[in-house]
Amino acid sequence: MVICDGMADRPIKELGWRTPLEAANKPSLNRLAQTGICGMLDPISPGVPPGSDTATLALLGYDALKVYSGRGALEASGSGVKVLPGDVAFRCNFATVNENMIITDRRAARIANEEAAKLAESLNKVKLKRNSKARFHFRSTIQHRAVLVIRGPKLSTAVSDSDPGMVGEKAAEVKPLDNSSEAKLTAKIVNELSHDFHQILRNHPVNLDRIKRKLPPASMVLLRGVGTIPNIKPISQTYDVKAIGIAATPLVRGVCKAAGMKVLDVRGATGTPQTDYGAKVRATVHALKSNDFVLLHVKATDVASHDGNPKQKVDVIGKVDSMLGYLLDHVDPNDTYVAVTADHTTSCLTGNHEGDPVPISITGPYVRFDKVKEYDERSCAEGGLGRIRGKDLMPILMNLVGKTRKFGA
Amino acid sequence: MVICDGMADRPIKELGWRTPLEAANKPSLNRLAQTGICGMLDPISPGVPPGSDTATLALLGYDALKVYSGRGALEASGSGVKVLPGDVAFRCNFATVNENMIITDRRAARIANEEAAKLAESLNKVKLKRNSKARFHFRSTIQHRAVLVIRGPKLSTAVSDSDPGMVGEKAAEVKPLDNSSEAKLTAKIVNELSHDFHQILRNHPVNLDRIKRKLPPASMVLLRGVGTIPNIKPISQTYDVKAIGIAATPLVRGVCKAAGMKVLDVRGATGTPQTDYGAKVRATVHALKSNDFVLLHVKATDVASHDGNPKQKVDVIGKVDSMLGYLLDHVDPNDTYVAVTADHTTSCLTGNHEGDPVPISITGPYVRFDKVKEYDERSCAEGGLGRIRGKDLMPILMNLVGKTRKFGA
Repeated sequence: MVICDGMADRPIKELGWRTPLEAANKPSLNRLAQTGICGMLDPISPGVPPGSDTATLALLGYDALKVYSGRGALEASGSGVKVLPGDVAFRCNFATVNENMIITDRRAARIANEEAAKLAESLNKVKLKRNSKARFHFRSTIQHRAVLVIRGPKLSTAVSDSDPGMVGEKAAEVKPLDNSSEAKLTAKIVNELSHDFHQILRNHPVNLDRIKRKLPPASMVLLRGVGTIPNIKPISQTYDVKAIGIAATPLVRGVCKAAGMKVLDVRGATGTPQTDYGAKVRATVHALKSNDFVLLHVKATDVASHDGNPKQKVDVIGKVDSMLGYLLDHVDPNDTYVAVTADHTTSCLTGNHEGDPVPISITGPYVRFDKVKEYDERSCAEGGLGRIRGKDLMPILMNLVGKTRKFGA
Repeated sequence: MVICDGMADRPIKELGWRTPLEAANKPSLNRLAQTGICGMLDPISPGVPPGSDTATLALLGYDALKVYSGRGALEASGSGVKVLPGDVAFRCNFATVNENMIITDRRAARIANEEAAKLAESLNKVKLKRNSKARFHFRSTIQHRAVLVIRGPKLSTAVSDSDPGMVGEKAAEVKPLDNSSEAKLTAKIVNELSHDFHQILRNHPVNLDRIKRKLPPASMVLLRGVGTIPNIKPISQTYDVKAIGIAATPLVRGVCKAAGMKVLDVRGATGTPQTDYGAKVRATVHALKSNDFVLLHVKATDVASHDGNPKQKVDVIGKVDSMLGYLLDHVDPNDTYVAVTADHTTSCLTGNHEGDPVPISITGPYVRFDKVKEYDERSCAEGGLGRIRGKDLMPILMNLVGKTRKFGA
């Protein structure tokens, strides 16, 4: 299963009212469509714009509406932090605040990884007072980005963000979102940590040095996207398959881990348009030799969309297409099914995830191939799969490879 | 509603990468498609391979995922044994075991009906010791096949099979699958019966005679597919219709009974490719005079698929087509809707039920007929119905005949 993040789009004037997929040079995607069965796929349901987390959960066969439990823990787990069931985790930003706690830079001028790591080291020395049973781990990831994981017996995700999402606002107090003692305790712990972090950061040598260099200090940690690891059955158990994920994006890696999949590290895979597509697809072909199911996730298509750059998106799709050509040329056509889809529509125009369905095409020895000749949003809509939901794809693929159980007799 | 068991298939190399439906001579099915509205139907949901029991429940409008309660009771009821709500029933096989209870023939060389009936008569004389409130009835059906129904105040279906499903294994002890006293009691009763049955069978004159004739004795009864009658509302109540089923297969007859339908006995209907198609369709036309809804079930298409015989399947579809020609010629076209579908895909290649959707076509005076000209998996996928679920079909048909109630005001 190849997921091209945000690859689907809407017609764009600049491309002659074509979508980037329609405008792209994509012989391999078209070959897939010509030999396969095509359709439209609503990652969650029609009109609902999904996140990459909920969409990937759905594409792995889960009912995201039931099992999704926030982004924080998936992101933390995907970043390599150990997250256990019940742990409450946040996505964090190093930000700059003034003396009135007003945010002046949400990213502390995209502070360097090395500086952020030094700050994180100091922050992890904070001792929690209010609840001696709770512990935490803070890890900086890329630039200003970080994750915070809190472990304890009575925690809750029913708490608000401290990140107001824009400069000029005050860093917010985290509030319990229900009346449970767990939510109140979690809010207290988080507010205590935020306060203690700020005290350490404002006088930290790294920040004093930044001020000297006329750089905004990383004087505050903003938290958002609270979550826990979803309580879901590993796909290896549901379908009796050995499954592996190839993805650079921490969030997608976290979803794969939550689904009980191994996650491969590929040298040169960066989650950007400059990623090493060849390395990823070679790793995929290799992984297929010892796995029943391989998820290959490509982030680059989404990056171009969020940048609002249709021509870059067309270009990236061309690179993805070459990558797929290698894949189709190097898998055993008598024994392998290849499905290509997107996790959501990302509009170059709005720069947002949108609720339009995405194209899906499945090729392989015994699919009911249809008449569709091109892989794009409008051609696939005429395909033999009709309109399916994200969570249907995994049962369809697993059935094709003989890994589903009969319901009834 | 005509259900052609397992008629849908995947493209087969031997048929020039066509499906049996695509390869068959089927003027009447095509006439149906040309005058009707076509689509794809997922009996349960995309990718999920259904049994004939769950699929038929769905096609009769029930949510099989919610109401299905095992095969045994449906099979027993369909075989003519009275099964009440709460009764726990099993499908049984007469099998041959050696002195170590190892199964040497799971079907006792397909023992003759008459011999099996004599054995059943003796087995029904067993007295249950452990729970005087429970009673049982054992009935042989066709060859080695039989059903066992246990009635009592505190029984459960949470018990395992005694049939390990293959020769060379020991007949298994039935185990409770949860901690309830009901499951424990049911397992005890079943194990006691299995033991007592074995004691009677090993010295039974019928078996002593079989041994003399060098035939494997039916020395053991193996149990599987435990179930109860699902607790469902009769379709006559849901839609205010008089409904009847025409089916030879015990399982499908049992589903019809569970849905509160009458079930017709048709002379010459055998559930095999040699069934009397003419007798079944004449009975259907006749039944339509005094019923609002007739279900006509044809098993033969599935038999050919399980035998892995595409050419036989093509041939059987031709016979089904002639049968449908008679039906279309003999119903009142101004007053009758005819829907033809399959309960599931059965692949001639894998010999298994598969999760691919099945074609559906509905003809009748006021359907929104579409452009589809041929009745097969891929042509119907281009039809006006799009992709629907099994449980949607009955509301669609009942609405066409004015038997649905408005939801809302």
